[in-house]
Amino acid sequence: MKVMRDPVHGHVELDELAVSLMDTPRMQRLRRIRQLGLSNLVYPGANHTRFEHSLGAHHLATTLAGEIDSVQQSEIDELRVAAMLHDIGHGPLSHVTEGIIKKYTRREHEDVKHLLRKGDIAEVCSDAGLNISSIADHILGKTSLGQIINSEIDVDRMDYLIRDAHYTGVAYGLVDHSRLIHKMQFYEDKLVVTEGGLNAAESLLVSRFLMHPSVYFHHVTRISETMITRGIEYLIEQEKLNPSSLQEMDDYSLFETMRRDDGYAGEMINRIDERKLYKRALYVGFDDVDEKVLGHRKAIQRVEKEIAEEAGINEEEILIDIPKLPRIEEMKALIKVNGKKMTLDKASHLVATLEKAHRDNWKLGVYTPREHREKVKKIATDFFEVKKQTRQYKLTDI
Amino acid sequence: MKVMRDPVHGHVELDELAVSLMDTPRMQRLRRIRQLGLSNLVYPGANHTRFEHSLGAHHLATTLAGEIDSVQQSEIDELRVAAMLHDIGHGPLSHVTEGIIKKYTRREHEDVKHLLRKGDIAEVCSDAGLNISSIADHILGKTSLGQIINSEIDVDRMDYLIRDAHYTGVAYGLVDHSRLIHKMQFYEDKLVVTEGGLNAAESLLVSRFLMHPSVYFHHVTRISETMITRGIEYLIEQEKLNPSSLQEMDDYSLFETMRRDDGYAGEMINRIDERKLYKRALYVGFDDVDEKVLGHRKAIQRVEKEIAEEAGINEEEILIDIPKLPRIEEMKALIKVNGKKMTLDKASHLVATLEKAHRDNWKLGVYTPREHREKVKKIATDFFEVKKQTRQYKLTDI
Amino acid sequence: MKVMRDPVHGHVELDELAVSLMDTPRMQRLRRIRQLGLSNLVYPGANHTRFEHSLGAHHLATTLAGEIDSVQQSEIDELRVAAMLHDIGHGPLSHVTEGIIKKYTRREHEDVKHLLRKGDIAEVCSDAGLNISSIADHILGKTSLGQIINSEIDVDRMDYLIRDAHYTGVAYGLVDHSRLIHKMQFYEDKLVVTEGGLNAAESLLVSRFLMHPSVYFHHVTRISETMITRGIEYLIEQEKLNPSSLQEMDDYSLFETMRRDDGYAGEMINRIDERKLYKRALYVGFDDVDEKVLGHRKAIQRVEKEIAEEAGINEEEILIDIPKLPRIEEMKALIKVNGKKMTLDKASHLVATLEKAHRDNWKLGVYTPREHREKVKKIATDFFEVKKQTRQYKLTDI
Amino acid sequence: MKVMRDPVHGHVELDELAVSLMDTPRMQRLRRIRQLGLSNLVYPGANHTRFEHSLGAHHLATTLAGEIDSVQQSEIDELRVAAMLHDIGHGPLSHVTEGIIKKYTRREHEDVKHLLRKGDIAEVCSDAGLNISSIADHILGKTSLGQIINSEIDVDRMDYLIRDAHYTGVAYGLVDHSRLIHKMQFYEDKLVVTEGGLNAAESLLVSRFLMHPSVYFHHVTRISETMITRGIEYLIEQEKLNPSSLQEMDDYSLFETMRRDDGYAGEMINRIDERKLYKRALYVGFDDVDEKVLGHRKAIQRVEKEIAEEAGINEEEILIDIPKLPRIEEMKALIKVNGKKMTLDKASHLVATLEKAHRDNWKLGVYTPREHREKVKKIATDFFEVKKQTRQYKLTDI
Repeated sequence: MKVMRDPVHGHVELDELAVSLMDTPRMQRLRRIRQLGLSNLVYPGANHTRFEHSLGAHHLATTLAGEIDSVQQSEIDELRVAAMLHDIGHGPLSHVTEGIIKKYTRREHEDVKHLLRKGDIAEVCSDAGLNISSIADHILGKTSLGQIINSEIDVDRMDYLIRDAHYTGVAYGLVDHSRLIHKMQFYEDKLVVTEGGLNAAESLLVSRFLMHPSVYFHHVTRISETMITRGIEYLIEQEKLNPSSLQEMDDYSLFETMRRDDGYAGEMINRIDERKLYKRALYVGFDDVDEKVLGHRKAIQRVEKEIAEEAGINEEEILIDIPKLPRIEEMKALIKVNGKKMTLDKASHLVATLEKAHRDNWKLGVYTPREHREKVKKIATDFFEVKKQTRQYKLTDI
Repeated sequence: MKVMRDPVHGHVELDELAVSLMDTPRMQRLRRIRQLGLSNLVYPGANHTRFEHSLGAHHLATTLAGEIDSVQQSEIDELRVAAMLHDIGHGPLSHVTEGIIKKYTRREHEDVKHLLRKGDIAEVCSDAGLNISSIADHILGKTSLGQIINSEIDVDRMDYLIRDAHYTGVAYGLVDHSRLIHKMQFYEDKLVVTEGGLNAAESLLVSRFLMHPSVYFHHVTRISETMITRGIEYLIEQEKLNPSSLQEMDDYSLFETMRRDDGYAGEMINRIDERKLYKRALYVGFDDVDEKVLGHRKAIQRVEKEIAEEAGINEEEILIDIPKLPRIEEMKALIKVNGKKMTLDKASHLVATLEKAHRDNWKLGVYTPREHREKVKKIATDFFEVKKQTRQYKLTDI
Repeated sequence: MKVMRDPVHGHVELDELAVSLMDTPRMQRLRRIRQLGLSNLVYPGANHTRFEHSLGAHHLATTLAGEIDSVQQSEIDELRVAAMLHDIGHGPLSHVTEGIIKKYTRREHEDVKHLLRKGDIAEVCSDAGLNISSIADHILGKTSLGQIINSEIDVDRMDYLIRDAHYTGVAYGLVDHSRLIHKMQFYEDKLVVTEGGLNAAESLLVSRFLMHPSVYFHHVTRISETMITRGIEYLIEQEKLNPSSLQEMDDYSLFETMRRDDGYAGEMINRIDERKLYKRALYVGFDDVDEKVLGHRKAIQRVEKEIAEEAGINEEEILIDIPKLPRIEEMKALIKVNGKKMTLDKASHLVATLEKAHRDNWKLGVYTPREHREKVKKIATDFFEVKKQTRQYKLTDI
Repeated sequence: MKVMRDPVHGHVELDELAVSLMDTPRMQRLRRIRQLGLSNLVYPGANHTRFEHSLGAHHLATTLAGEIDSVQQSEIDELRVAAMLHDIGHGPLSHVTEGIIKKYTRREHEDVKHLLRKGDIAEVCSDAGLNISSIADHILGKTSLGQIINSEIDVDRMDYLIRDAHYTGVAYGLVDHSRLIHKMQFYEDKLVVTEGGLNAAESLLVSRFLMHPSVYFHHVTRISETMITRGIEYLIEQEKLNPSSLQEMDDYSLFETMRRDDGYAGEMINRIDERKLYKRALYVGFDDVDEKVLGHRKAIQRVEKEIAEEAGINEEEILIDIPKLPRIEEMKALIKVNGKKMTLDKASHLVATLEKAHRDNWKLGVYTPREHREKVKKIATDFFEVKKQTRQYKLTDI
């Protein structure tokens, strides 16, 4: 039994199996992948990694599984392995490369069976007599037990909300995870929150709601992550980067690969290194535009080109960010009330409103170098038919 | 300048004026008045007092006032004095005796002008050239500046939410008060949240929402506070306690006064001392009864009598608790968006839903000694026409 | 299994046996006994009680006992009961009445066998088939297993150091108790720290060292506790208080008993209620006086009388506080190094010096009402032959 | 005024000057330099950077300078700039490359005048009318005011002790910095702790004492940092890395430069990436060897070679770590007692013993790949004439 210190959960115990997994090169790589992509440009403390998050998820999964009677030890071990390994499919900067990996390799980051079958991990699992297919299915949330690590309310979310709040210093990530874990049970093969856990479940959803505009969708993060994403795509298109290698890289090799480029990718990473970021030319909420702007999501580069041409600037100097409308999957988490299962939004007026409330935080952003800002603002405002008298955040309102 | 340590705000600085006020007997009395009444029966750590809360409110008021340009030093001093003294009108166990004081003396606890005019406090204010009427008006929230300590979003609430969460150990009280204070301004004579403070304001409201069922309306607290309230009223009716003395008493003298009684009050305090509390015979939510049950609020003792008679027990052995429907005043706090003032519920879908969401937490309770529980449950269920298939919390779901 | 929230340890689990004990009137009484006597006059947050400390000690004892293989469940249960009940012998204000109880009843506060044999506690233990003598011996630290709750390094100290720091807001109480507990074992029937726990053990000792002058021996606490002690002794001598009733009383009844007195005790409690405390007339360290002043400890009242006479004031207006020289029992805790047991001071130069270092914090104090201060200072300085050029803390250095 | 969130100090305010400095490329580089080198291999949370530490030091320097009356605003600005920039001379992994930079460039990391004279920083300082020589001297601690950021007790140490403890999760870094800052003054041109700050100063020294073996000198950190240091030196000797470029590099470029090497440096970084570290073959304390072993510090490579030869392995497979005996500069910090300055070790028995106590933590280590361990242990034990019956930490005692 090895004890690790975790600033979030205190002392975290790891048995021999967990230590063997942790010591594999694939897990060690996560020590060099930031959990929150480029959020550290906004929150200087946000340098935490997928590695410690994986230990945290493993710790919470172990705790939660320990409160369930109905499963066997080997099943629990498979679940615990899955919790430890659930993020090994991430590329550099976590979610930042997630879309690119998916676009070019058709793989979600949770789809890791091919990684489990190789090298040290396969060996550790085989020595422990564990089934790799089951582990892969747990990670995908396709099994009953797997709901503990991948479902509407799971230990993955609990850990990252608390951890992200801890390292950003934001006050909002306060989930009552101890109570929540204590109040979760399996019922008719589904992981449910029992009645005394309703408030704790609400706290998780509200925490995520408040973290969204402050952290996950902070405009500086969106700008810099859009910038670096475009740089990476440029490298791939120039055949200077093989997209299938991303799952082997870490933040260090990504930055250096980009730095060695003397074209657009090099410019982007240089701007990020020196924090000379594009600025907001347009930044408006959902009430300020017509819903049809969502239609542009499929053809963003065409729109960028169109606006760039009108502004007489290079199309690479316009970045447009049109997020999806939020879906709050957690609303459909199950709660058991009076012996009956229902979804959380049926049991809580607060939860029922969250999807709508999240729209308050949706923002359409158009970003460009500082010097083109005024010009682009005017053109983009027309293009997206932004309503007059609209609320626009000032840059000083960060 | 004196520096006090506060577990919530760290080092809190007090100038000479603040120290003089703090040293008056009336402020010192607050050291012996629990902030959260009998919540310590549920949360053993909840022994914090009105005294430290007053220091905290004074600290936050000083900070917030320090960020406003437009006021004069003497005005700020009056406000700071008001923040320090805003709770001197409380009787023992804070809100527990609030209703009784109001019923018998017609005085709200914020109505303290008569207390300011007396003794050391009057002297300190006079020496500092401060106007007692202004201070009293600030405490009542009747002035513009007074909104800082008594309005929809004020330093009083900020301090107590954070403090109550800290001492109960509940995870929910996390208000981003630093940001909120930083983002508040006066605008057209109104204290408003500026746009960058919307999330912080939401965090305050959600915090209060989550604290309600867990702490402020926890059924054990409601039961024990109802028990002690009835005991105090019994003493007043028996002329063993002069209601106008309550504002001079502390928790110690209240407990001892009740202990010396050999009647109903004595029995109640003995049950609280030994934590032999009445139990829930009925505990149902708003959806489980018809809205007209609220009509019984005015005649609770008559209902208690009726149920007691039918159950063949003493009427003092039935306690009924029908809370008011929650009003969430904070929804009407002002926020400045795009140069226009609007109420928070207009600017936030989340806030707009909170009043309705609070109804999820409303509970009608009927409490009785353990041995009468089954009998009373049946009668009360009929009396209040509780719907079948209703959600009832189990005692084990605390 | 009941889960309580504790601001210090988070969620604390209590099994049926622990809940039954907690619900006895004798344990409930501890909810109304402050852990730190009158320290709340210095640290407004220090209102925590013996009740929550008892839950904390029970929690840590359960954790530590859970890591030992060699004992039987019933033995562990006896130990856990002992941890829960170890403070039931305390009178009002904890250590404040400890000396008085000992003086008049010849009982240490850990000597509680007579309390265990009575009422609900006896019944709970008997129902659980536990041996009351064993429990009493554990509390006295007379058994091997009892070292967990009462020895040089025990869970009692761990809990109170962390808890006292938490509620005072002082930064010093930081013991690495998780590691310490993890690194303790039984070896040759002795509870020892194993080698990897040396730093954690040092942290406990240093924490206590730093807490001493800041909290435990803060002069305002010493003054007010000396004042109230003298008031209680006055009541006993006047036969207005039966010393054997102290173990049945709580803080509330003590304050009210004193308030009802119209003599010296009444004056003392009134001064404490209004925080009109005696002031330091003399306050000097060990280097400033000759070691022989310790000889006066046995005859303090005679010295008080002598100084009072010379000053022409009432002898009750002089309070002299000559603490014992500190003995740091923890230095003799055992550590296992290279398979050999040795005492901590042999294994750590830091620990070896602590007893001497504690002398830096020893203070001789002479206290008197503000108006007699100058006069008494002069006489006391002569009486105790205080060296010239001595270091004296200023009142403003608090 | 910009407000940044810092997990350690909460909200940190930055004025325009500070923001301009923070936005320079040289400061931004510090976002990619880990504060604690390779400590994250032991403490997974220890990913914090020199960037946030610099903000923290700037924050504390601003606070402390704000409490001094006697200086002018422009002097304070120079000090604050110095606090912000004090670490810009660091190379990758902070202290890890410190020795190498010094060895090859003859520059201490605090010697940064050449860096201040260049680019954006020079421009910002010039625009603000600040003197670069003064700033450089403050950073070197050569000025009176500069003692705030570089002297025996300075804001640099306060920030890093608290920050390192926060991110490692170790309980020991608890310095009462608020009180310490509050109790520091200039006296006869020296920065002194005033008497009421003695305990707070002791807490700083003890914190550093306890952090040493747990964090700063943890053997896994020492091993991996020794490994990477040798790899870097190899690159320099092979002329694959120009030592004068180190002050321009970050952690990313260091790792990638080493990864591109196919010799010894490549092997070392690969071992670190995969955490296949050398192991302790010998690990003994000061009492276990003769003091003369310190003499080998000058010729470590010769000793390594000698042992390697005897073991029949490659000399690069032996790493020997003989730390200097600790000097505790803080002992010579000044405290003002009774109007007289003295050094801390004169005022505190605890402090007086710390240098000696630190020897308890000194360790001589010989590291080698796992497979050579037994062999090397035997030879090294003879070579260093290790005493029998010595205390050796087990690997399992981490």
